[in-house]
Amino acid sequence: MNWKKVTLAVATASLMPATAFAVTIPMDPQNNTLDPQSPYATLYLSQNTPSAENQVGPDSWTHAYGNPQHNAAFPVAKNAPAWVRQGVRWNFPEARAWPLNDNHPYGEKVDGLKEALPVQTQFYGNALGVSVVRGVVYAESDDMFAYAINAQTGKLIWRASPVANNLMGNPLVVGNHVYLSAGSVSFNFENVMTYAKDPQKAGRGKDISYNGVFCLNRNTGKLVWSFKTAGDAMPTPAYAEHSLFISTGDGNIYRISAADGKQEWKTHVGGIANMSSPVVMDGRVYVSMSVIPGLYALNIHTGKVDWKGEIPGAVNTGMGDVSPAAAKGIVVMDTVADPKVVDGKPTMETIVRAFNGKTGQVLWTVNLGRGPKIPAFKGGVPMIHGDTVYVGTPVTSDYTAMNLHTGKVQWSWKVPNPGPAGAGRGAPTFYQGILYISTGPDIYAVQADDGQLIHSYHVGGRFGIVNPTIVGGTMYLGNSWDWVNAVPVKDVNPQFN
Amino acid sequence: MNWKKVTLAVATASLMPATAFAVTIPMDPQNNTLDPQSPYATLYLSQNTPSAENQVGPDSWTHAYGNPQHNAAFPVAKNAPAWVRQGVRWNFPEARAWPLNDNHPYGEKVDGLKEALPVQTQFYGNALGVSVVRGVVYAESDDMFAYAINAQTGKLIWRASPVANNLMGNPLVVGNHVYLSAGSVSFNFENVMTYAKDPQKAGRGKDISYNGVFCLNRNTGKLVWSFKTAGDAMPTPAYAEHSLFISTGDGNIYRISAADGKQEWKTHVGGIANMSSPVVMDGRVYVSMSVIPGLYALNIHTGKVDWKGEIPGAVNTGMGDVSPAAAKGIVVMDTVADPKVVDGKPTMETIVRAFNGKTGQVLWTVNLGRGPKIPAFKGGVPMIHGDTVYVGTPVTSDYTAMNLHTGKVQWSWKVPNPGPAGAGRGAPTFYQGILYISTGPDIYAVQADDGQLIHSYHVGGRFGIVNPTIVGGTMYLGNSWDWVNAVPVKDVNPQFN
Repeated sequence: MNWKKVTLAVATASLMPATAFAVTIPMDPQNNTLDPQSPYATLYLSQNTPSAENQVGPDSWTHAYGNPQHNAAFPVAKNAPAWVRQGVRWNFPEARAWPLNDNHPYGEKVDGLKEALPVQTQFYGNALGVSVVRGVVYAESDDMFAYAINAQTGKLIWRASPVANNLMGNPLVVGNHVYLSAGSVSFNFENVMTYAKDPQKAGRGKDISYNGVFCLNRNTGKLVWSFKTAGDAMPTPAYAEHSLFISTGDGNIYRISAADGKQEWKTHVGGIANMSSPVVMDGRVYVSMSVIPGLYALNIHTGKVDWKGEIPGAVNTGMGDVSPAAAKGIVVMDTVADPKVVDGKPTMETIVRAFNGKTGQVLWTVNLGRGPKIPAFKGGVPMIHGDTVYVGTPVTSDYTAMNLHTGKVQWSWKVPNPGPAGAGRGAPTFYQGILYISTGPDIYAVQADDGQLIHSYHVGGRFGIVNPTIVGGTMYLGNSWDWVNAVPVKDVNPQFN
Repeated sequence: MNWKKVTLAVATASLMPATAFAVTIPMDPQNNTLDPQSPYATLYLSQNTPSAENQVGPDSWTHAYGNPQHNAAFPVAKNAPAWVRQGVRWNFPEARAWPLNDNHPYGEKVDGLKEALPVQTQFYGNALGVSVVRGVVYAESDDMFAYAINAQTGKLIWRASPVANNLMGNPLVVGNHVYLSAGSVSFNFENVMTYAKDPQKAGRGKDISYNGVFCLNRNTGKLVWSFKTAGDAMPTPAYAEHSLFISTGDGNIYRISAADGKQEWKTHVGGIANMSSPVVMDGRVYVSMSVIPGLYALNIHTGKVDWKGEIPGAVNTGMGDVSPAAAKGIVVMDTVADPKVVDGKPTMETIVRAFNGKTGQVLWTVNLGRGPKIPAFKGGVPMIHGDTVYVGTPVTSDYTAMNLHTGKVQWSWKVPNPGPAGAGRGAPTFYQGILYISTGPDIYAVQADDGQLIHSYHVGGRFGIVNPTIVGGTMYLGNSWDWVNAVPVKDVNPQFN
């Protein structure tokens, strides 16, 4: 590395009076180390690191929504600290935090409320929920920062912004590393024109910003390495066998070393990975793509495509915006489909399909019904618990339970307060027989066996593709209004103890 | 306004130890006031405001590149303070400042250097140069901050980030107000698909982020009002007759009150304003657009289109990325044009055309020659001084002088160190018979009468669409590596005194 010391007149980035002083600017672009006075410089507050007895919850976080099943529920031992069992309540304001009790997102008057709500999720606050590992909540935000927050106290441990780009994932946490994925929903004009000529050749995120996976030190937030990709890396990668699996906006799937970011293989499947995170099960990585909608099963060792699954009628973007869930050798995928005008109004429906993970054979297909066209054409994230699939959809603002093996629908429950953009994108979390669902500005507790609503809790703001992450007596969430929320489970479900 | 006090556990955003304390979060979304501990909160350091005797330079800044002629040269009186006459040198690191002596922008290995260079300009650092008014340098950056910097000392007076969006303009400064324009180069997927069906219906920036003009208090950086637009407001507005004229990524031209942001008229001309800032001359506002390339002359009182000018062969994006220059009743516009493959390589040419500002009659057309296809299809910004037009183009990396009335070419000068993306986007600045040109990593002094190079000065990083703003003995610049630079004129031209 080539470090040089330069003397500059700089102003302090704190609220303290400014002074002129010498700063050392590292000349190491690989580490992209910012002026230590920059608002984007990594902030590390070691005193907020949890003590050993408070490092509760899972030891690692390997997939978006917690695991291939998308069920982010983590019971704790009976002798866990009292705060863990009883739950804590705090709201951590991220860098662009917006008042939670304000119903109207920024720009509502221009975009209309229906459009402004997803924009807030896509460019302003937290698109997904949070990861919790050993007493620390890790969050990525479209405000361009990632955060590590003490799960008990809600105090900041570190904050980092390694790249000028949106961070839309669940941070993965394995060993000493935290992995962020960077990419926005953006196309530049050249790729807009390319798409008009040949949709397969256009890439989201290409030549517009710096995309890829950024590996940080888990304790301090300091950048360890980065793996740059030409297309956006909006989806959260998956971790398995000491590697990361990445899908990008220019139709590539990468396997890279989780230790040092070295590429192990790359497969071009085409299309665009919007927000569909890869899932690993039984030696295969499953990735869903837009433009030519498809679900791909790749051998994790070679990157070879074993099979490609389809869902008839899937809209252009539909399959790229849902992450498949996987369990018991079965992969469950859904998409919005078959847009058409009914009674003068644009409508679409939601189709769920299950595939044999090994062969790609279609096991069953369920149509969840027709409803109004929703902004950005996005379906809900499926979750598998035991032998049941649970999935919502903003098209009808319903959550539905169906048998994992047969698709037989067990019940359907309509979100009472869906808002103009529809509700149902986030996966439910199954915890002690109850489903916890965060959608719109609310969190709901619903009986998992019959879909009966038990209770709801109003947080405010809006939940994007957010599943509650439950550890002991607390659920942790990310909010499109740019907050991380900790809510006692008993506030959402008074029967909880 | 509706203010509420909420108690939260928050960590300090400074480098000080964290503490839990009560913060007052204003519940006024119009003002989008952030947590005062947020890295995006407005920082105001009153002690760095220049004293009265040091408030040198123009009293206002009404157009991109300083004025409708695009000549940002401001001589000072012989009795001005010594620092003003002799010039000062400082480099102010903005929020994502990147080492100036690093040749390779972030992402170069992925995008290739030719593509990575414009990306750095479009999404990372300063796209345009800076405004200087009464001893203060005002800069907008793609790092999402605007800055007010003491022109003498290089110390920060205020820093503000009123919206999560790129700021690509020259701040306008009139009276007590600073006006920023917010918008990025981004299209969302829905507008990508719309463009493929009907290019005229797609809008840049629509439903992807919050765009518009943001009015700040000139002294403190505090938000006064904002005017939101659905399409991006990348171009710097123009100020005239107590109003602002705005062009947007969804083909609209607005006139709004500079006092309070109230809309006065709106005209939909169609197409997309990329980086083409409006110019006001003799009761008309001139705006250039992409998609269907065209130069529009609108009556400033009514918004009615008086005439539309064209340049034959203009590429899709070409006319939207250059701001017309206007003087002596003549409007000068240029564009990249006629892309074709020559000897197996993509090429294009640059066409300059002058119009009668009142009638739209074509006065002359000059072809500046053919060269390699450049990233993002952008021409150079023309500048008019006296009876001469000066304009560069990255297609050939030449600057050319031609007669304003006849188009007769007087000389052409090739930039010696253009770099792989080409040089020549920024307007030259004419000052005491010399042209000062900032392009690539360098600043050049060139004889205005014959195009002979006098001297050059290496700054490092890269200048985007940057014209040097000269006040007395100093030139002020914005840099794609996210710096504001102050360079003594005599460093660039040893003959200067």
